This record gives sequence, structure tokens and C-alpha cells, in this order.
Amino acid sequence: MFLKNCWYVAAQASELGRELTQRWITGEPVVLFRSEAGKPVALEDRCPHRSASLSKGTLIGDAVQCGYHGMTFDCAGSCVRIPGQEQIPAAMKARSYPVVQKWHWVWIWMGDPAKADEALIPDLRYNDTPGWTVTGGVLKVQANYQLLTDNLLDLTHETFVHTKTIGNAAVAETPMESNVEGNEVHVQRVMRNTPPPPLFKRVRNLTGNIDRWQIIRFQPPSSVSIDARGFPTGTEDAEQGLRWFSINSITPIDERSSNYYWTITRCFALDDQEITDLVHKQILATFLEDKEVLEAQQRLIETDDRKKIEVSVKADFGSIHARRVVQRLIAQENQGSAA
Amino acid sequence: MFLKNCWYVAAQASELGRELTQRWITGEPVVLFRSEAGKPVALEDRCPHRSASLSKGTLIGDAVQCGYHGMTFDCAGSCVRIPGQEQIPAAMKARSYPVVQKWHWVWIWMGDPAKADEALIPDLRYNDTPGWTVTGGVLKVQANYQLLTDNLLDLTHETFVHTKTIGNAAVAETPMESNVEGNEVHVQRVMRNTPPPPLFKRVRNLTGNIDRWQIIRFQPPSSVSIDARGFPTGTEDAEQGLRWFSINSITPIDERSSNYYWTITRCFALDDQEITDLVHKQILATFLEDKEVLEAQQRLIETDDRKKIEVSVKADFGSIHARRVVQRLIAQENQGSAA
Amino acid sequence: MFLKNCWYVAAQASELGRELTQRWITGEPVVLFRSEAGKPVALEDRCPHRSASLSKGTLIGDAVQCGYHGMTFDCAGSCVRIPGQEQIPAAMKARSYPVVQKWHWVWIWMGDPAKADEALIPDLRYNDTPGWTVTGGVLKVQANYQLLTDNLLDLTHETFVHTKTIGNAAVAETPMESNVEGNEVHVQRVMRNTPPPPLFKRVRNLTGNIDRWQIIRFQPPSSVSIDARGFPTGTEDAEQGLRWFSINSITPIDERSSNYYWTITRCFALDDQEITDLVHKQILATFLEDKEVLEAQQRLIETDDRKKIEVSVKADFGSIHARRVVQRLIAQENQGSAA
Repeated sequence: MFLKNCWYVAAQASELGRELTQRWITGEPVVLFRSEAGKPVALEDRCPHRSASLSKGTLIGDAVQCGYHGMTFDCAGSCVRIPGQEQIPAAMKARSYPVVQKWHWVWIWMGDPAKADEALIPDLRYNDTPGWTVTGGVLKVQANYQLLTDNLLDLTHETFVHTKTIGNAAVAETPMESNVEGNEVHVQRVMRNTPPPPLFKRVRNLTGNIDRWQIIRFQPPSSVSIDARGFPTGTEDAEQGLRWFSINSITPIDERSSNYYWTITRCFALDDQEITDLVHKQILATFLEDKEVLEAQQRLIETDDRKKIEVSVKADFGSIHARRVVQRLIAQENQGSAA
Repeated sequence: MFLKNCWYVAAQASELGRELTQRWITGEPVVLFRSEAGKPVALEDRCPHRSASLSKGTLIGDAVQCGYHGMTFDCAGSCVRIPGQEQIPAAMKARSYPVVQKWHWVWIWMGDPAKADEALIPDLRYNDTPGWTVTGGVLKVQANYQLLTDNLLDLTHETFVHTKTIGNAAVAETPMESNVEGNEVHVQRVMRNTPPPPLFKRVRNLTGNIDRWQIIRFQPPSSVSIDARGFPTGTEDAEQGLRWFSINSITPIDERSSNYYWTITRCFALDDQEITDLVHKQILATFLEDKEVLEAQQRLIETDDRKKIEVSVKADFGSIHARRVVQRLIAQENQGSAA
Repeated sequence: MFLKNCWYVAAQASELGRELTQRWITGEPVVLFRSEAGKPVALEDRCPHRSASLSKGTLIGDAVQCGYHGMTFDCAGSCVRIPGQEQIPAAMKARSYPVVQKWHWVWIWMGDPAKADEALIPDLRYNDTPGWTVTGGVLKVQANYQLLTDNLLDLTHETFVHTKTIGNAAVAETPMESNVEGNEVHVQRVMRNTPPPPLFKRVRNLTGNIDRWQIIRFQPPSSVSIDARGFPTGTEDAEQGLRWFSINSITPIDERSSNYYWTITRCFALDDQEITDLVHKQILATFLEDKEVLEAQQRLIETDDRKKIEVSVKADFGSIHARRVVQRLIAQENQGSAA
């Protein structure tokens, strides 16, 4: 059961061009491409005629021709050609989805198009703000999307999973402060006078201790941005330290797998490609560590016959409340559609 | 749900010899071999004792010895030996299936043996007629067998899937004529003064336009023969043109996969091995294109959660009526067995 | 449905050390290791916090630290650390299982710990008796554990499956004597003045005929030991012949797969490593033949849609009664837990 009336990331803006690209999103097949004018387009990737994948067809101008019997659909999903037949049945339509390019990514609305309000796109502005340099990617993870948001809302795991890059003892030892504001969940950890983790040291040549902040913001259904700061102890000086946002948005492929869209966007050494490459490589390695943990977790939950109720701790405040928000929104959505 | 009281192709005649061959047919395991006298034999491929595959055993004379505990069964499936025991329980019997070698293939009757009438074998005589040269094979396709008969009953797809061999624009543009005669469905397309498709050109050195016929005959449950003709425009002269039958019979392995038996049988250049090899290679490549489309279609139907009603067009007349015939025959069969 | 109040082999004693080892047993994930004192320990391999596999964590002294958020559990499964939190909820406990090292193997009790009586460990003493040399291993087999015990309780199959090592015609031809004693099932075959099978010849340089005994003892839920003897005809002289125990214990991984623990323990040529290597290699090859048969059997039972009632023969006495014992014990266990 997924929230449908909301925006999910369908692709990185850089991934879409004039070739047909297939993505499964919340259990539905979608074909993505850019129109000749460069506008992103999303249609259901299933020919209404005989269920062939439109993404295996051909893009002709701004229309998609099915690779099986040649039915052709425009950007609105209307059928514009049936080979050997003049009349086009009204039902011969491929569903089209609202799409918007914003914050480095292309967003898709899987629910009622009438409700697709761009203002509801999660605020991930640091992905696309002058004075900030962004690097990122997408990772397929064989785990339910909420295992990924759980992961991002409790960074305690950095101490145990990410010792080579962004984790050290301080993270796990420092309690968090958390609160819920409307549909957002905020979690914050402030570590004073603490050794910098390995990647911070390498990126900013930090030698002494730092004050370190992790300011986490969850926006439903599955975006988590982390304002990460590490400044020489007592200075509060970004110039001497590190500040970046780790911006994450998780798109459910189906109940058991997800596309994990991520960026690191920083406000220092803006044009330093070496720093960009280093950060990209190290953060990717970090997320591959998560992937391994999360996929093992998914497998265990699926395979273990026994129903087990998980035991929570204080650090789970964020993930528990984020799940509650999504659960409430899904309930509202279903109530709405039932009315 | 499969039709059982009917003939399916179990194997190409050339495939069967003195080794034990396993085939799954309509969800049941079957072991096939030839007797010492050369007669094809089919038993259920499941030892009644402890469910070992008889096909992993040994053929001794005309009897199959199970490879696990040595129970031995004759061509009628009667147990003729239980090691270490004189008395043979009446229930120790492997089911035997009626089999007939006809039209290049070995046919099996999966239903009530008392109803197995050879006259019900689909008429595919051009597979085995003097003055015709046949080449063919069998292809495993991960798709329901009716997706394959659908495919063969609407050749519009040649224009989009088979542009390298037998498809060009004329096919899709020319309307079809169709009709139902008893349990048979007939679909016909006549293309006048049209460019020959690439393979016709190569095989018959055609330079100018042709008149082209596709005369399709469906016989239940899953045989489709296509009388294909391409003669220089206005000549109706087979000598200068191409005529062959594309003969196809699809055997369900289970609900999700099929064995696709196919031949091309031609009435020209009978002894020209080069032509035989060319046709075989090109038609196999053509059917591998179908396989890719059909398997993608099957995957989509299985994976997409949403129930979708497909929208039909005029060109679907043949496949729709062929499905209706099979549905009616299955209903009659079930009614019969309930009575 | 598995018997839980009983001992299963969890590992060979030699397999366990200071690294964390995962095994699935009767559908439950278990993590195994040795304490600093060398005692085998078994915990459920599922962190009660967020279902990570504890076996992917770290062994610190005698405690297991979860690799995800650092929850740490002692050998009794009690949580001794929650990072960033003083108070430990009572429910934060990993289940611990009784384990005992005995007869070359480490045994685990998957049911009610209060009922875990060491006296109930199957008597496999020849795995660990002075004057006997043991070799063995563990094999994963994709088949239900009872297909394996069936296999061991009817050695008729040696004649058909193991012709290269321990099977010849005499085995299948000689009737068995069987009886049930309490929860044990005994099957015995005595072959007088019979040619030795190939492996017997090689191991003991036997040239003439032998008297051969197979004395099989089933102890529930899934241990089968075979007292195998082959002495020159009429001599009853172990010195000139072969005597070993084939000791087998099958641990269900889940309903469809099993770990097959096996040994051969012999009372001759005790220190002859060449003989040990030969026996190990040949018996492993023999059991790989069984694995192939058993996995095909499992696949057939799973894939064939039709429900088929198997037909039994006299040689099935042992396996039928062994299954009845296990069925009765499971029924008693469920009745007990319902009461």
C-alpha cells in the first residue's frame, strides 16, 4: 500500500533524454522521455491494446509507437494511430502522469492528476541553489522504501556501519532531539568538541576536534535531508569547516525494492572537481554499506516465518513518527477515494 | 486451465529416440521415448512409488526402470518389476498417454484416452507432403501459449517487430478479412502490388513489386498455419514467386511458458540446402524477435498489480475468436467431466 | 510443521569458532559461535530492535554487537548495551537456544528450553569412541528433510543410484527385516555370500564373496545410523573385512531444504590417512548422487499440479514408520502446547 497522491522522484534530471526509459514506481510501470522541446513526459509503460511495454517501442517526434502492433500515443497518452484502422476507440488511451523537473530531479505524481500541486514537492532547494555544488546518483536497493527512511532518521548506525567515512563513536553516544511539525519530522544531534570522522578530515584537512551537527528533516512520503556541519570546536566558522546537505529521496519500486536518489550538495570548494569526486566516491561507498544492511534486513523479515514485534528505543523517535505520518496520509487518501 | 481432450505436439519426430526425454505439458511431467520397434511412447514422468522422475532412470528394452528404487514400467505404464518383492500392487501404475506421430511431429493426448481420436489431430499436412521441403524447430518461450496464438493471428506486428525479414509497411496498412467456421478461425490479408519484404527478396531474387497473401488458419487448441504467397504483381505465378506454409503449434508447458513448434514448408527449390539454411536461420531470428516481445508482455501482465482490461481493434478479430473457441471447448470439457 | 522439542545438529563441532556463523534451522535464523571459554552458543539471528542479522555484527568478548545500531547481547541473549541510552527495555532480548556439543557435532534445542534434556540427544556414540576413526561433513540439499530420512531407511536405492561405490544387485534383491521399538525404527538386511560392492573391495582389498549386513537405526526426528559390515563369507571376521557406521543426521533448514550432516566412522586401519581420504571422497560422491535424486524429487513434488498419492512397497516399512513416529511426536507437542 503506497501513498499515491504525492510526488516521488522518477529520475535524475540528467538521466532523461530522447530515449525511452522504463521505471517501476509504486508497483506501476512508467515510461519516461523528454519531448522535442525538452519537457519530461511520463506515460504508463503498458500499451492499452495488448500490454506490451511501450518503453520497448520507438519515440517518433513526441509520440511513442508501440513496438508490437504500432499503436501510437502522444504526450498526453492519447492514441494518434492504429495501423490499418481509421477509427480510434475512446478507451485506447495510455495513462499520462504529471511530471515536474525540480531540485535536480524529475518528480512524478502517481495519484489523481487533478490534485497534483507543484507546491507539494518536498523542499530540497539546496540541490539547486547558487553557491552550492551538487553530486549524486541513484541506487537500486532490494528493500522496502521505509527501511531506507528509517535508516536515514536514525544516524546512530553511522557508528557501526560507516566507520570508514562518516561514523565514529560520538554519533552513537550523543542523544538526539526530535519533534514533529505537521507532516514533517525533525531530528537533531549536536556533538560538541568531538573528533571529526575520517571523511570530514580528508575533505577539509581538519586536525583538531570539531563541533558537529546533524539536522535531519523528513518530508513525506520519503524525502530526508540532512544538514551536516563540522566546524573547528568553538569557532562556528563554516569557512574553516565542513557544511553540506545530504539529500535523499526514496521511490518505491514495489513493496520489496526501491530506487534511492541521493545527493551531497556543499557550500565550500565549489569548483574543486577533486573534492567532488572524492565526496561522490566515498558517499557512494557509504550508501553501499547501507544497501548491504538493508537488503539483509529485508531478506530476514521476508524469510523468517515467525511474526516478531520489534522493540524500539529512544533513537527510533524519528522513524516511528515518520511512519505514522505516512500511515495517516495513506488512511486519509483511502478515505477520500472511498467517499 | 487447459483443454485436455485434444492433441498437443509433444516433440518433433526427429527429437525422439532411445533416450528418455522429459517434457512438461499442460502442467504435467511426461517422459517420452521410442520403443525398440520405433513407436513413440509417453508415460507420466513421475514414479508412482516415491515421485522420482522416470526420465532420470534407464530404458531397458521397452521398459523404463526408475533410477531411484528400480521400479520398472512397460509402455502401457504397468509395473513389471519391484526389486525384492514378487507381488505388484494394482495401484503401482504410471499413467500412459496416447501418442501419434503425424505431420513431422509427435502428438500427445493429455485427457481421457478413450476419447483420443486421431482424426482430431490438426490438419497440418504440408509438413509432410511430397513436393514440399520442410525445415523447423522448437523454441521455449516464457509466455502463456495464448499470447503466442494471438501473435500469429494478427500479423500486423510483422511491420513493427520483423522489419529485417518478413515485415514492411504494407502488412500493417492492409486490412484483414476474418471469419469463423466451426472451431476454426480464418484470417486473410491480400496485399496487391506491394514491395516484397527483405527475406522474400533474398530467397527468390524478387526485384519488382509483388502480390502478397497471408492466409491464416487456426485450429484449436493452438495450431496456426499460414499460407504465405508472394508472386510478381499480376502474375499469380508461383514459379516466379514464393510460396510456403508457416506452420506453428504451441504446447503449453504451464500457465507461464510454452514450447513453440514451428516449420516452414516450401514448394520451390526443394533440394536447395542453401535456401533451406537461409530460411531456417532467418525465420528462427524472426521468432526470436517474437519471443522477446512475448516474454516482456508476460512479465508485464504478471508484475503489474493493476487489473487492466485490454482494448481491442479490428485486427484482433482472429485472436479474440480463437480464444473464444478454446474457452468454449474447455467449458464443454469441464461440463462433460462434471456430468 | 517441524518437531521443535528435540535436538537437531546445528553444526559440526569443528565448524564453530570465534566467528559468527549463520544457520537457518526449522525456519528460524540462528547465529552460532564459541564463547571465549570455548562453549558453543546459539542466539536467534535477528536483532529484536530492527531485525538486522546479528551474524553480520561483531563478537566482542562473549557478546554479540549488532552491526546496524550497536545493540549488544550476551550469551543468554540479554541486551547489555543500547548506544546512547541507559535504560534497557525488558523486551530487548534475543532468544537463546540450548546447545550441547556431543558425538562430533553441536546440537541445538529449538523448542521449550525447560524441556531440553541432554539425555534425549540421539545415541550416535560411534562418532566419538576410542578405537574408531571418523570422517565426515555437511551437505546442503534442496529437499525436505524427510525425503532424506526416507532415502536412508530404504537402501534398495544403492543398487540403482550408487553402482560405483556401495551398491550392487544383491542389495535390491535381498528382503529386509524391520521393526519399531518405541520411537525407534530398525531395518536390517543380511546378504550372505554376495559380491562386495566396489568401495568395499578397494578399501579392504576383498577378492572373494562376503557376508554383508546393513543394520539401520532411526532415532527421531531425523538421525539414521547404519552399522555396515562386510566380512569374507562364513568368517564373521571383522579383521579381514570391513565394518563402519554411516551416521547421518538431517537438520531442516526450512520445508524445502536441509543440512545433511554425515560421518563414516570405522574400526580398522585407524591411522591410515589414505583410507580416510579415500572413504571421505567416495562417500561424498555417493551422497552427491543422492542429492541429485532428492532435489529432482522435491522439484517434481513442488511443480506437478496434480495431487498424487504415492504407492508403497514392503521396502518402505522403515520410512513409513519413521514418518509416523515424527508425526505422532509433533501431534503430542502441539497438544501439549495447546493444553
